Amino acid sequence: MTANHSENPEQNAVFDRDCFAHHLGIELLEAGEGTASARMVLGEQHLNGMGTVHGGAIFGLADLAFAVACNSREALAVALNVNISYVKAVRGGVLYARATETSLSARIGTYEVVVTDEQGETVALFYGMAYRKQAR
Amino acid sequence: MTANHSENPEQNAVFDRDCFAHHLGIELLEAGEGTASARMVLGEQHLNGMGTVHGGAIFGLADLAFAVACNSREALAVALNVNISYVKAVRGGVLYARATETSLSARIGTYEVVVTDEQGETVALFYGMAYRKQAR
Amino acid sequence: MTANHSENPEQNAVFDRDCFAHHLGIELLEAGEGTASARMVLGEQHLNGMGTVHGGAIFGLADLAFAVACNSREALAVALNVNISYVKAVRGGVLYARATETSLSARIGTYEVVVTDEQGETVALFYGMAYRKQAR
Amino acid sequence: MTANHSENPEQNAVFDRDCFAHHLGIELLEAGEGTASARMVLGEQHLNGMGTVHGGAIFGLADLAFAVACNSREALAVALNVNISYVKAVRGGVLYARATETSLSARIGTYEVVVTDEQGETVALFYGMAYRKQAR
Repeated sequence: MTANHSENPEQNAVFDRDCFAHHLGIELLEAGEGTASARMVLGEQHLNGMGTVHGGAIFGLADLAFAVACNSREALAVALNVNISYVKAVRGGVLYARATETSLSARIGTYEVVVTDEQGETVALFYGMAYRKQAR
Repeated sequence: MTANHSENPEQNAVFDRDCFAHHLGIELLEAGEGTASARMVLGEQHLNGMGTVHGGAIFGLADLAFAVACNSREALAVALNVNISYVKAVRGGVLYARATETSLSARIGTYEVVVTDEQGETVALFYGMAYRKQAR
Repeated sequence: MTANHSENPEQNAVFDRDCFAHHLGIELLEAGEGTASARMVLGEQHLNGMGTVHGGAIFGLADLAFAVACNSREALAVALNVNISYVKAVRGGVLYARATETSLSARIGTYEVVVTDEQGETVALFYGMAYRKQAR
Repeated sequence: MTANHSENPEQNAVFDRDCFAHHLGIELLEAGEGTASARMVLGEQHLNGMGTVHGGAIFGLADLAFAVACNSREALAVALNVNISYVKAVRGGVLYARATETSLSARIGTYEVVVTDEQGETVALFYGMAYRKQAR
């Protein structure tokens, strides 16, 4: 859990200390300035009562990619608002999330995270807004 | 995990079969037509890299209340879109979520979920839209 | 257009100077600390290509109520993010919007605006987040 | 107002009949399958009480591009939900909106609309979800 996915030690730390992400079995694949990629191998613990992957599990994966992407700058960033649209139901396999920065100002950064399945089809679209609190 | 929180067996089943909710330690408190309440006793597994409760854990709690509330009718309902605003950081204790139906048409239902801490202060505001797929 | 809808001169000014709200024919009904109500008498200029009231016109009405409600405090507030759900189509008559504050911190305020028709039925649910910039 | 911006007559009709878009001074630049571009030359009627372009005017421009993009298919599409983030204040000039389809299923389409100013800088990010009602 201490692999160097990013050249930025802050980004590695955001992931390494994230107990919730580890509890969900999320792996950070790579991270850079304003970006991050992660994956989650699906198991029974990710399913809802209908046997499909829980919206909360999909959100958790996307949220980790968002958190790592928005903490790639000097400022400590916290989530203000997220909008997520679910566009395809999934029953198993592996999910991938890729976060990209869509705007950045002194106080606010916005991020798009696309969640895809093993076939590369879009499962969910996650749009996050972060508040950049202070220098670390 | 098989207590009767609702007089509606479908609502109890939505919760009882929800492996993800159990993985997060969420408890259903009560449920009725278009409503549901749940709680989550916070532990280390709910924390992010900053030592505060993870946005994804807060989302998961609210999402369970949303799922139970929107499955109180004859139709099977699935989440289309969720918007969540984070308004207060939390470090531990217990979180509560209360879902209420804000509109209902043949195909679409909308729900508001308020997440509060032990002091009754608002932690997050979650607004979900569900698509009512078919009779069960 | 210079009636005193609020005891707070800042709230009256936010409305009185709002050229866009006047262009849409929006009237401010009343305003208080963290709240505002407005209405819009519908005409042909509010319709879309299907002959129903345009989502943008409904948004404009709700947005004016949001702007007046969030500028009832000492700080100058600007919109960061809005989520709107459309739950009923409307063809004419009068629309009403009522904004209520759902949370307030040093930098961020959140507001709910319910848009209703003449029958009191919900037409749209608008959730806005404002950034409180500075003392005026 | 009856120029052929698209080879698809339905797309042209969505714009041509849109009284609200004309009331705001919006022009459709081009449209194709799942896409549309529009612009709005800013005047005093687009301003709010602070002298910047009103969030509702920016929304109206993006919403027109969304409506034309999502009505490029055989089905009649109506807006269910929109999330908009405001990332830069603007005082005048020209605004552009470009809509792109981000997913499409039998009943639901999702669209991203980027609003930019004359310098090409992002002013707002608009994410819309449409319900595809029926064949026309």
